[in-house]
Amino acid sequence: MVSINYWDSKVNSVSTLLITSLPLHSNNTGSVVVVESEKNVPFIISRVFMVRALKNEKRGNHAHKLCQQFLMCTSGKVEIVCDDGQMTRTFILDRPNQGLLIPAGIWAHQSYLSEDSVLTVFCDRRYEADDYIADYNVFRSFLGLE
Amino acid sequence: MVSINYWDSKVNSVSTLLITSLPLHSNNTGSVVVVESEKNVPFIISRVFMVRALKNEKRGNHAHKLCQQFLMCTSGKVEIVCDDGQMTRTFILDRPNQGLLIPAGIWAHQSYLSEDSVLTVFCDRRYEADDYIADYNVFRSFLGLE
Repeated sequence: MVSINYWDSKVNSVSTLLITSLPLHSNNTGSVVVVESEKNVPFIISRVFMVRALKNEKRGNHAHKLCQQFLMCTSGKVEIVCDDGQMTRTFILDRPNQGLLIPAGIWAHQSYLSEDSVLTVFCDRRYEADDYIADYNVFRSFLGLE
Repeated sequence: MVSINYWDSKVNSVSTLLITSLPLHSNNTGSVVVVESEKNVPFIISRVFMVRALKNEKRGNHAHKLCQQFLMCTSGKVEIVCDDGQMTRTFILDRPNQGLLIPAGIWAHQSYLSEDSVLTVFCDRRYEADDYIADYNVFRSFLGLE
């Protein structure tokens, strides 16, 4: 089944991306940050993965045809570069209640800027190998830019 | 609506609790840990919250009537004490791919054993104030033990 999102993914622009703040309940002993399906993220959470990498390591370098992802840096500091085939934008996540929604059709890579950084990614879909576009030229073709 | 889980929650025992290992994909530059709805956790993920606390801080001290929770320590080290009204068991979470499923009807508290510990909790339900039992005597009554 081809969803509406598939077609949207060909026209998504980095210009509309923004870091959002999630509810943060804190007192002098600690804090709680909450992510709820269809409330703080615009989808039902199907999968969550946590990425750890050495400082200065770069990961990512792919786009998704269908999968939407909400990225949080739950420890440390991570830089995220998003590319819609025509323009790039760079975001820094380094606070526990910040998140960045990356819709399908955006190429992204991440740099892990501190030791013990953890990038926590909330997804609307299960893992599907076919959903990845890992070649930048194929990504541009997918967007109809070649 | 009263779900089956509600009734199960009155007979859940800490004897059946166990730490499970999640898929960990690692190489020499980093790792990825994956949590999928109805695959690594026995429910659809409705809500995820991340708790941060000072070292040696204790939190929790309540049970849920309905909510199931899957606890992961995604940074640092956390001790979790679970109590079914008749017996307690203590678990340590200190590895990125460990998780502990706590069904409804189990009283639990957590001790944060290292600086920068993050407890990440996956839930099958949204936040509902009525779902909390924060008084231990009420908890025992709920279980039919008084």
